Amino acid sequence: MSGSKYAYVKSYETPDNLLPGTFIVVRLDGHAFHNLSQKHSFIRPNDERALQLMDNAARDVMDEFKDVVLAFGESDEYSFLFRKTTAVYKRRHAKILTTITSLFTSSYVFHWHRYFPETPLQYPPTFDGRIVLYPSAQEVRDYFAWRQVDAHINNLYNTTFWALVQQGGESTTQAHHTLKTKHEILFSRFNINYNSLPERFRKGSVLVKEDTPVEGEVPEKAQSLDTRDLNNSKTSSQVVLHHCDIIKDDFWDARPFLLSK
Amino acid sequence: MSGSKYAYVKSYETPDNLLPGTFIVVRLDGHAFHNLSQKHSFIRPNDERALQLMDNAARDVMDEFKDVVLAFGESDEYSFLFRKTTAVYKRRHAKILTTITSLFTSSYVFHWHRYFPETPLQYPPTFDGRIVLYPSAQEVRDYFAWRQVDAHINNLYNTTFWALVQQGGESTTQAHHTLKTKHEILFSRFNINYNSLPERFRKGSVLVKEDTPVEGEVPEKAQSLDTRDLNNSKTSSQVVLHHCDIIKDDFWDARPFLLSK
Amino acid sequence: MSGSKYAYVKSYETPDNLLPGTFIVVRLDGHAFHNLSQKHSFIRPNDERALQLMDNAARDVMDEFKDVVLAFGESDEYSFLFRKTTAVYKRRHAKILTTITSLFTSSYVFHWHRYFPETPLQYPPTFDGRIVLYPSAQEVRDYFAWRQVDAHINNLYNTTFWALVQQGGESTTQAHHTLKTKHEILFSRFNINYNSLPERFRKGSVLVKEDTPVEGEVPEKAQSLDTRDLNNSKTSSQVVLHHCDIIKDDFWDARPFLLSK
Amino acid sequence: MSGSKYAYVKSYETPDNLLPGTFIVVRLDGHAFHNLSQKHSFIRPNDERALQLMDNAARDVMDEFKDVVLAFGESDEYSFLFRKTTAVYKRRHAKILTTITSLFTSSYVFHWHRYFPETPLQYPPTFDGRIVLYPSAQEVRDYFAWRQVDAHINNLYNTTFWALVQQGGESTTQAHHTLKTKHEILFSRFNINYNSLPERFRKGSVLVKEDTPVEGEVPEKAQSLDTRDLNNSKTSSQVVLHHCDIIKDDFWDARPFLLSK
Repeated sequence: MSGSKYAYVKSYETPDNLLPGTFIVVRLDGHAFHNLSQKHSFIRPNDERALQLMDNAARDVMDEFKDVVLAFGESDEYSFLFRKTTAVYKRRHAKILTTITSLFTSSYVFHWHRYFPETPLQYPPTFDGRIVLYPSAQEVRDYFAWRQVDAHINNLYNTTFWALVQQGGESTTQAHHTLKTKHEILFSRFNINYNSLPERFRKGSVLVKEDTPVEGEVPEKAQSLDTRDLNNSKTSSQVVLHHCDIIKDDFWDARPFLLSK
Repeated sequence: MSGSKYAYVKSYETPDNLLPGTFIVVRLDGHAFHNLSQKHSFIRPNDERALQLMDNAARDVMDEFKDVVLAFGESDEYSFLFRKTTAVYKRRHAKILTTITSLFTSSYVFHWHRYFPETPLQYPPTFDGRIVLYPSAQEVRDYFAWRQVDAHINNLYNTTFWALVQQGGESTTQAHHTLKTKHEILFSRFNINYNSLPERFRKGSVLVKEDTPVEGEVPEKAQSLDTRDLNNSKTSSQVVLHHCDIIKDDFWDARPFLLSK
Repeated sequence: MSGSKYAYVKSYETPDNLLPGTFIVVRLDGHAFHNLSQKHSFIRPNDERALQLMDNAARDVMDEFKDVVLAFGESDEYSFLFRKTTAVYKRRHAKILTTITSLFTSSYVFHWHRYFPETPLQYPPTFDGRIVLYPSAQEVRDYFAWRQVDAHINNLYNTTFWALVQQGGESTTQAHHTLKTKHEILFSRFNINYNSLPERFRKGSVLVKEDTPVEGEVPEKAQSLDTRDLNNSKTSSQVVLHHCDIIKDDFWDARPFLLSK
Repeated sequence: MSGSKYAYVKSYETPDNLLPGTFIVVRLDGHAFHNLSQKHSFIRPNDERALQLMDNAARDVMDEFKDVVLAFGESDEYSFLFRKTTAVYKRRHAKILTTITSLFTSSYVFHWHRYFPETPLQYPPTFDGRIVLYPSAQEVRDYFAWRQVDAHINNLYNTTFWALVQQGGESTTQAHHTLKTKHEILFSRFNINYNSLPERFRKGSVLVKEDTPVEGEVPEKAQSLDTRDLNNSKTSSQVVLHHCDIIKDDFWDARPFLLSK
C-alpha cells in the first residue's frame, strides 16, 4: 500500500513565503473575550491578573522566537515585531502565524492557574491572529503608535463606563447612553484623575528584548511569579516589561537596534 | 490623542479570502512532539491516551465549526474538511486557520489532565497548521487516502521498531539499522500479526458529523469521559468516531453528504 | 564584475503558481476603447471590422496555446478558457497572463491594416487582463453565461441608443436621457426587431477548438482573410467561430470535452 | 434576461493589491527573441535599431505612467521603477502588470517600421512580464546593479562570440566551444578593446524622468526620429536617455528624487 498514487495532492500546497526585507508584525486577538471575562469574573475595568497572564504568554513567544524583538499588549490583544532580516521558518506565512498563535494560546491555558488560583478555567479560550508586513521603520513605529493610541482610547472609555456603573449606580445600558452624550462631564463627575491611573492600563504592556538595560529607565520590578527575565540562560539578552509611551521618539531613539538590520 | 494619523497602517492588511467553491482542508501538526512524548513517557509505539486527547480536541473543533464535516487524525496530526460552500468568516484564510489552530491547542492543554491524570503537563505544547484548497471531490478523497496510507506506513514502522527495542532487546540505534536492512524478516520474528493490531493504530481516527448513524456500521463506543456525541444538544447531528478505511469507496458512498454541496 | 553580490534581489520574486485542478479563465479588456473607436471612426453601434480584428487576435492566442479550448468575445473584451489540467508555464500566474495579453495586443496592432485598410492606426492601443480561477464546470458555464448576457444587455442598449441618434435625430446627451426614462417605448419606436440583428452582435463571438465539427451546426463561413481554421497544419483540431447561445445546455452538451479533464 | 443569477461568478475575482510602501519594479522580457532576431536579420552582436525600438517603447510607458521614474533596458528586456508611494490603479497587481506589458508590446509593433523601414515585421512579437516588490532604496539600487552587471556579462560574451564567428571564421558551434575553454585568450586575439565599445552596448539604456538636466552630464543627443523628450508638453519633466553606470553611487547621489518618497 504505497501512498505514491495519492501524493500528488501535496502539490496543492502553494508556497507562502513572506516578502524578504520587510518587518513582520503578528497580531493576536482574544476570541469572544467579553464572554470569557464575564464567566471568570474579571475585575472591571481592568483585571491586572488577566493582563499579566497575557504578558507572560507574550514572554513565552519572545523566549521561543529570538527574532521577535518587541511586543505590545493591551486588553485581549498582543502584537509581535520580528526583525526585518529574520529568516525564521524561511519566512513561511502559515508556519510563523500558526506556531505563534498556538504557543500563545497554549501558554495562556497552561499558566492560567498561576494568575487565577481561585478561579478554575471553565473552557478552552482561543485567539485568532494575522500577519501584516511593513516595509520601513517609520511604518512600524506608526503601527505601534496606532495600537497604543487605541489602548488609551479604550481604557479611557472603559474607566469612565465602569465608574458610571460601579460608583454612579447606572445600569450598563444607561452607562453606554451616558457616555455617548456626556462623555466629558461624566468623566469629571467621579473625580477620577485619569492620568493617575496605573501606566499599565493607560499605556499597555511593552516587552522589549534588550541586551543591557537602557540608561535612566526603570523597568517594572519582575513579578515574583516570573523571574525568567532576570535569569534567562538561553540568551544573553533579556525580555523586559515596560508600560511606557512608544509613540514619541524617546523610546525608539534609545533602542536603535529595534528597527535596524 | 486621536489615532487617525496612524490608522493608515491598517491599509497594509491585505485581504486573504480563499477561492470560493473549493473544499478547505486544515491540517494541524504537533510541534516537536517527539520531545513531548519522551518528557511525558508516552507508551510506545502508540499511546492511546494521547490519541484520545487528540480526538477530543478535534471534536471540540467540529462542535464549534458546523461546516467541518469530516476530520482525520493519526499520530500528532489532524486534518479537517470544510464543506465547499462554507462561508465561515467570509472564508478569510488567516482567521479560519488561526482560530482552528488556537482552539485545538487550547482544548489539548485544557483537557490534558483528564487523559493523563497522573502525568502533569510540564510545558505548553504547540501545533502548527496550514490550509490547502481542493477543487473537486476526487482530490479530497485522495487527500484523505494519502493521510491514511501515511498512518499505515508510520504505524507499521513504529510497531516493528518498538518490537525490536522492547521485545528484541535492541538499542534504538540498532533498531533503526535493523529496520533499514531487514525490515520484513524482523517483522515476522516477533510473531506479531500486524493486522490484529487495533484499528485505531492502523487506520487512525475518523470523525464524521452525521445526522443519523449509517446502517450496518458500529461506531466505537463512546468513552466514559466523553459522551458529547450521544447527547449533543447544540445540533441534531452527531460527531461520530470511527477507525475505518477511508481509501476505498464504501466509506464515501455511504455518506454522499460529505462531498456534496 | 560578478553579479553575485546583487543576485540576492532575485529572491524577492515570489512564486505565483495557480491552484492545480481549477479552470483558468483569462479575460482581456480594451483600455480606453471609447476613445479608440472615436478616433478611428468605428461604425455605430457595432463595427464588424473591429469585431473581426478581435476574433482574429483571439484565434492567434488559441493557435499558440493548445490548452485554450474556448474563447468568448464581445465588444472590446475577450475571455479564454484553459483546460483545468493544463500545465502551461507550470501554471505561473504572471507568465500566463502577460504572455496572452501581449500576444493579443501584438496581433491586434499587427493585423489592424488588414481589417482597416483605409484607416491607419494612429497610436498604440492597449488591453488589460486578469485571471480568474473556477473550481467546477458549472461555475465555468455560469461565467460564460454571465458574459453573454452582458453582451446582450450592452448590445440592446447600444442599438437603441444609436437608433435614437442616427434615425431619431437626438443628440447623444438626449439619447442617454431618453434611454433612462423611456427605454421600452423608444426601443419600439424605430421598428427595429432586435431579434433580427446579426447573431454576431447579439451573441458575441464564440471560438471553439474542436476535433471534428459538431453535427448539425454550421459554423460561420471562414473569412477570405483568414482560412487558418480550414488549413491548420499545426494540430488536427480546428478553431471554429460561432455566434451562438452558450447559456443553455445545448452548446455544452454537444461538446463534453470542453469541461472534461 | 438578467445577468444577476450568473453575477456570483464575479466574486471569484480575488483582490490583488500590492503591499503599500514598497517600490514596484516591472520587468518585461522578449519571448523567443532569438527567433525574432534571426527572422529579421538583426545585426550581431548588437543591433542598434532594435535597441532603439525598445527604448522608444519604454519611453511610451514612462510618458503614460507618471509614477515610473526610472527604466533600464538591455538586450530584449526592460525594467521599470515606480515611486514607492504610487497609487496607480490602486496598486492592483494584474492591472498594472498587464497594462504596461500591453502598452510596451503595442508600441513595439506600432513603431517597428520607423526603426526597420526596409524589414517588414513578419509576425506579432510578444513579451512576458512580472512584478517584483522591493521594500527599501538599497534593494532597488541592487536590483538595477544586478541588471546592469548582467548586461555587461552578456555583451562581453556576445561580442567575443560574434568576433570568433565573423572575424575568426569559426562556426557558431565552434565559437560556443572556444568561449568555454579559452575565453580570455580569444578575447584578446581580435584586438578588440572591449572598453571602447559604445556605452549603449556595455551599459544598456537608462531612461530617467528628470525635472532639470543634472549638472555636468550630457545625455545622448535625441534621435531625429524621436524628439519627444525635448518637447514634452504633457509634463514639465523630461524622460532622458543615458548609457551610464548605475551601479556606483554617482548616478543615484545626483538624483535623490528617484528613491525618495
